Amino acid sequence: MSTLVERFRSGFRRHAAGVTIVVVVTDDGPVGATVSSVASVSADPPMLAFSVTRTGTTAAALAAGKGDRVAVFTLTTDQVAVAAAFAESAGERFTPAQGWSTRADGAPALAGAAATLRGPVAQLVPAGGSWLVLVAVDEVDEVDAGAAGVPLVYHDRAYWGLDALPVATALRAVEG
Amino acid sequence: MSTLVERFRSGFRRHAAGVTIVVVVTDDGPVGATVSSVASVSADPPMLAFSVTRTGTTAAALAAGKGDRVAVFTLTTDQVAVAAAFAESAGERFTPAQGWSTRADGAPALAGAAATLRGPVAQLVPAGGSWLVLVAVDEVDEVDAGAAGVPLVYHDRAYWGLDALPVATALRAVEG
Repeated sequence: MSTLVERFRSGFRRHAAGVTIVVVVTDDGPVGATVSSVASVSADPPMLAFSVTRTGTTAAALAAGKGDRVAVFTLTTDQVAVAAAFAESAGERFTPAQGWSTRADGAPALAGAAATLRGPVAQLVPAGGSWLVLVAVDEVDEVDAGAAGVPLVYHDRAYWGLDALPVATALRAVEG
Repeated sequence: MSTLVERFRSGFRRHAAGVTIVVVVTDDGPVGATVSSVASVSADPPMLAFSVTRTGTTAAALAAGKGDRVAVFTLTTDQVAVAAAFAESAGERFTPAQGWSTRADGAPALAGAAATLRGPVAQLVPAGGSWLVLVAVDEVDEVDAGAAGVPLVYHDRAYWGLDALPVATALRAVEG
């Protein structure tokens, strides 16, 4: 008989999630982590949400500075190495080899991302051992080099690409 | 030049998300919708989050009754038809042919789901045109017939399965 926490973890390992890198721009420079909980919350006005454990460096940066801006980079299957590096606490971060650069206004940019969404933190909601972070998106990069790429997916503790279903049917948008 | 809302929508079409059906158990019976924003928020205590537009029937059921229980069914690629039906406002719902049954305690069950997580609504956070819904998971079904299935993914307005990457590497858990 497994515990509730074990069954919860096991249950979510059977779920699939798109992989992003979330970067918080602080006075001391950018802080980032691989995050698989990013979701669109509202299209008009544009808002997204994600969660981070309160013990992590990203959560600390968010809790320390209200008004900090967040950038969310949706990754493609060509960016597994960047996802892995930002998931390790000792992994290399923000290197030019990974595709990172800094814009004139100081904001980070990641070459090859499928999409880049930016904005200030609108709300930090405490939830168990984590923060649920709401971002009021006020900027979506017009051109992304990875826009035609295959989104990177996290499932069962590994990274995956997408496979067309036997009957691939374009269907109307789902909620959420 | 596209508007911010258009670019936001376009950006999230390039993201990938696991597909679930979220069911709210009300006094008038179950209300459900296909939702692609479910994410694990905290493992201990177990909490998950998702968002629904405020104009939808699921949101109305959530807003009407505090303490209502929610059930989240993670779908597999064998359940595209159920996902599509629950994404249509006029789609057939909760039919035995889709795999639905009712437990002795009145809770809905979906045969073939990859995982089933249940619990009361812990918090409803208004976010733009939507509710961000936090669920305090207190029950995860021990056995799910679809546990070995491929999780169903939503991307670019279509449903997908998963494809192993050229170098499929099991990597440590990402945040969120």
